[in-house]
Amino acid sequence: MAKDKKVTQITDMDVDFAQWFTDVVVKAGLIDYSSIKGLFILRPYGYAIWENIQAVLDKRFKETGHENVSMPVLIPESLLQKEKDHVEGFAPEVAWVTHGGSEELPERLCVRPTSETLFCEHWSHVLQSWRDLPMKYNQWCSVLRWEKTTRPFLRGREFLWQEGHTIHATEEEAREETLTMLNIYADFCENWLAMPVVRGQKTEKERFAGAEATYTVECMMHDGKALQSGTSHYFGDGFARAFDMTFTGKDNSLQYPFQTSWGVSTRIIGGLIMTHGDNSGLVLPPRIAPTQVVVIPVAAHKPGVTEKAEEIVDLLKKAGIRAKGDFSDNGTGWKFAEHEMRGIPLRIEIGPRDLENGVCVAACRYNGEKLTLNLNELEEKIPALLEEIQNGMYRKAKANLENNTRPCATLEEAKETMTAKGGFIKTMWCGDRACEDAMKEQVGVTSRCIPFAQEHLGDTCPVCGKKADKMVVWAVAY
Amino acid sequence: MAKDKKVTQITDMDVDFAQWFTDVVVKAGLIDYSSIKGLFILRPYGYAIWENIQAVLDKRFKETGHENVSMPVLIPESLLQKEKDHVEGFAPEVAWVTHGGSEELPERLCVRPTSETLFCEHWSHVLQSWRDLPMKYNQWCSVLRWEKTTRPFLRGREFLWQEGHTIHATEEEAREETLTMLNIYADFCENWLAMPVVRGQKTEKERFAGAEATYTVECMMHDGKALQSGTSHYFGDGFARAFDMTFTGKDNSLQYPFQTSWGVSTRIIGGLIMTHGDNSGLVLPPRIAPTQVVVIPVAAHKPGVTEKAEEIVDLLKKAGIRAKGDFSDNGTGWKFAEHEMRGIPLRIEIGPRDLENGVCVAACRYNGEKLTLNLNELEEKIPALLEEIQNGMYRKAKANLENNTRPCATLEEAKETMTAKGGFIKTMWCGDRACEDAMKEQVGVTSRCIPFAQEHLGDTCPVCGKKADKMVVWAVAY
Repeated sequence: MAKDKKVTQITDMDVDFAQWFTDVVVKAGLIDYSSIKGLFILRPYGYAIWENIQAVLDKRFKETGHENVSMPVLIPESLLQKEKDHVEGFAPEVAWVTHGGSEELPERLCVRPTSETLFCEHWSHVLQSWRDLPMKYNQWCSVLRWEKTTRPFLRGREFLWQEGHTIHATEEEAREETLTMLNIYADFCENWLAMPVVRGQKTEKERFAGAEATYTVECMMHDGKALQSGTSHYFGDGFARAFDMTFTGKDNSLQYPFQTSWGVSTRIIGGLIMTHGDNSGLVLPPRIAPTQVVVIPVAAHKPGVTEKAEEIVDLLKKAGIRAKGDFSDNGTGWKFAEHEMRGIPLRIEIGPRDLENGVCVAACRYNGEKLTLNLNELEEKIPALLEEIQNGMYRKAKANLENNTRPCATLEEAKETMTAKGGFIKTMWCGDRACEDAMKEQVGVTSRCIPFAQEHLGDTCPVCGKKADKMVVWAVAY
Repeated sequence: MAKDKKVTQITDMDVDFAQWFTDVVVKAGLIDYSSIKGLFILRPYGYAIWENIQAVLDKRFKETGHENVSMPVLIPESLLQKEKDHVEGFAPEVAWVTHGGSEELPERLCVRPTSETLFCEHWSHVLQSWRDLPMKYNQWCSVLRWEKTTRPFLRGREFLWQEGHTIHATEEEAREETLTMLNIYADFCENWLAMPVVRGQKTEKERFAGAEATYTVECMMHDGKALQSGTSHYFGDGFARAFDMTFTGKDNSLQYPFQTSWGVSTRIIGGLIMTHGDNSGLVLPPRIAPTQVVVIPVAAHKPGVTEKAEEIVDLLKKAGIRAKGDFSDNGTGWKFAEHEMRGIPLRIEIGPRDLENGVCVAACRYNGEKLTLNLNELEEKIPALLEEIQNGMYRKAKANLENNTRPCATLEEAKETMTAKGGFIKTMWCGDRACEDAMKEQVGVTSRCIPFAQEHLGDTCPVCGKKADKMVVWAVAY
C-alpha cells in the first residue's frame, strides 16, 4: 500500500507544472537533495542518463578533433579579473575559498564558475607558433554559481557540464568552430534526445560575459517556456589580448589567436523531462534511455512464465538492446506504475495465456499504445519498434513546437498572444536595445533568439515601427 | 636546434630522481603548472592516459554490479564532523568556502577531501529495507587536500580519482566487497599497467580515518620507494551509527548496514612513470598507451615513402591498434627523441631502402630492441609484438621488485640494508605499535604492509625480540 502510494504521488502537470517537475525528478530516482541548497545528488538513474549523454557527445567531440583535459577546480581572484566583461559577469555569483586547513590564504580563490581564464593562462604558457594551432580542448567537470533560487537540473549552485575551449590562427576558423559545435548540439538534441530546436544567435544583451557572439539551441518545454539546451561562443581575440596569449605566425609576426567556448550541462536532462514527461512520470527516448525495455512476467508463479521472461531479456540483450527484467515480488500493477514513472520506453508483458499463444504484449510508454508480438520475431521487431518510438517522440515534440510558435505583428498582439496562449512568439525587430527591453517589460518575454532560419513577417518593428529586417523568436526562459 | 634541446633536457635519474620525474611529466606533455601551488593541469596526453585507466576500471566496476553517481563538491562543516576519527583525519587539510558571491555563509563548507560523509547522508535519506541492499556506488571526480608539499601526480592539493562507496546487510558481505575491489586494483596494476604489486593490509597506525581495516596494493618505484597504488577500506557500521543510517531487516528489526570505500587516483600515473620510465623519458605499456605505435617515414621526400607510411598507419588502425604517423617537417632524429620522450611503446621506421626490400624496422621503446618486419605480415606481427612488450615490461618490473625486496632478521640488518641498498625489506613483527615506531625512527621506513602472501622468516620480532607471527614489508613511502 505504501509502495503504491510512492509511485502515484505526482502532481498533475496542469495543476502545478513546477511541482510536477520536482515530483518526477525525485520519484523517478534521478535526484536527491543534499544539505546544501542548490547542490544536488545525481542518483544512479539520473547519472546513467548523463553518462549516455556524455558518451554520445564525447565521441562527436573526438571525431571532430577535440582532446579532453583537466583544469584546476579553483581560480585565483586576480586571474578571474583579467578580462573585464568576464569578471563583471561572474564575480557576483562565485563561491570563495578563503582558508586552506587552518591558515588564511593570501589571495581568495573561487570555485570555477567556468574555465575561460584557466584555459587562457595555460595557453599563454604553451602556445608558441602557428604549428601549435588549433588547440581544441574540452573538459567534463562540475562548476559552481552561487544562485539565489535553485531547482534540480534547471538551476543548481553546482552543475555538471562539458566546456569546450579552442584557439585558432584565424577569425574565420574560430567562427566556423563556433557554428560546428552549435550544430553538433542541435543534432544531438534532435536525433538523440528527440528534442526539436530553434538554432540561432543571442542578442547583444544576452551574450556570454566576454563573448563577441553567442549562439544557442532553444527547446520548447511542455509549459511553453524556452530552455537553452546548449550554447557556443565566439570570443574574437579579446581574451588573448587580456592574457597576453600570442603565437608566431607563418610570417614570423607575433599574433593573437581567436577563441571559442561551448557547453552543454545537466540542465539538458531537465529539458528532456519537460519535453517528454507526462502525468505518469518520466518519458525517455530509447536512444538515451539507460534501460530501453523492461520485461515483466504477469502471474510469474505460473509454470514457464518467469523462465520465458528471462529468456526474452537475454535475447534482447544479445540483440544489443538495453533490457532488464523485473522479477521482484512487487505486484504487477506496482511494477507497471514504477517503470512508467522511470520512463522506460517499452514494456513487455508476458503471462500464462501469452505463453500458450506464443506471443507477448509490448506497451509503448510515450503514447500508451499496446501491440501483440509473436515471440519468435522479437529480435527483429523490438529494435524497429524502438526506432519508431524515437521518431514518434520527435514528431510529437516538433508538432508542439510548431503549433505553439505564433507570429505577431504588433506589440498588442504579442501581449495578447503571450497572455492567452504562452509558447514562443516570433516578430520582426529593428535591432534596438530599447525595443528588446520593451518586449521584456511589456510582453514578459525573457529569452530572445535570432534564428538562422529567418522568415519575412513584415518590414517594421512591432515596438517602434521603424524598419526591421531581423526576425526574433521570443519566449519566457527557464 | 631549440627543438632538439627541448627533448634532450632531462635530468639523469641516477643524478636526481625527483628532478628526472618532474622533467618527464613536463616534457612529455602530461602536466602544466597552474598559478595555484599543487593544482595541476592535466594536458591532453596526460588526460588520455587517465581516460584509458578510467575506461578499464569503470568497466570492471560495472561488471561487478556498481553504479556511478555524482555527489556535491562541498561538505558543510557540521556534516564532516559527524564521524569523530574521520574529521580528525581530514579537517586539518581541507579548503574552506566561506563566501557565496558577496555574502558570508552561515556555515563554512569544505571542498570535499573524500565523500564518505556525503554518501552516508544520502543513504540515510533513501535506505529503507534489506531489499535496498547492497547499494554499490562509485563516483569519478576530483578532491582537494591542502597539503604543504606538492608534486605533480604524487601529491596534489587537487587530484582526480574514483571513490567507491558501498553498504551491505552483513559484515561478511562488506568484508568480501573490500577484498574484491582490492583484487580488481591489483589485477589492473599488473595486467594493464605492468606494475607488479604487493597486496596486503595496512597496520592500525596507517588505517584510513574512520576505517576498521585498510587494504593496499603497493608498487616499487625505480628508486626503491613504495607507491600506494590503490586502497580499499572496511568501515564496519561505525559511519552508519554516526549518521543514524538504518534499514529494516528481513526479521523486521532495525539494523545498521556495513560499509566499504575504495579508491584509485591519478597518483597511479606517477607510479606508471616511476616504474617504467628511463633517461629518455616516459615508457608506457601498450595496453594503457594512448598511442601504441608511431610510424615515422625516413627520408619522407623520397618517392613512395610517405605514402607507404600512411598505408601502414591505416592498416594498423584497421587492425584495432592505436597508431599514428608523424608526417611533420621536423627532423627524423627529433621525431625519434620526441616519441621516445612520450613513451610510445613501438616505433616503426620506413625509408626508401626498406621500401625496396618490402620491410620496415620496429623499435621497442622499453628495451631498445629493433626488429626487421616484412610489410606483408604487420597485421599479424604487430599485435603479437605489443603483447610481448606488455609482458616483457611486467617481467622486468617484477624482477626489480623481487631483487630489491630483502629479508632482514635484526634491526641492525634492517638499518644496514636500507642504507646500503634501499628497496623494500621484509621482517617479522610482533604487532606492537612501539616496534613499528622504532622501525620508522631507526630504519627510516615510512610505509608498512602486511602482505596476504605471508612468509615465515623466523619467530621473533627484530625490534623487541618477542614472539612474532606476522611478516611485514617495510619501505620508504611516496
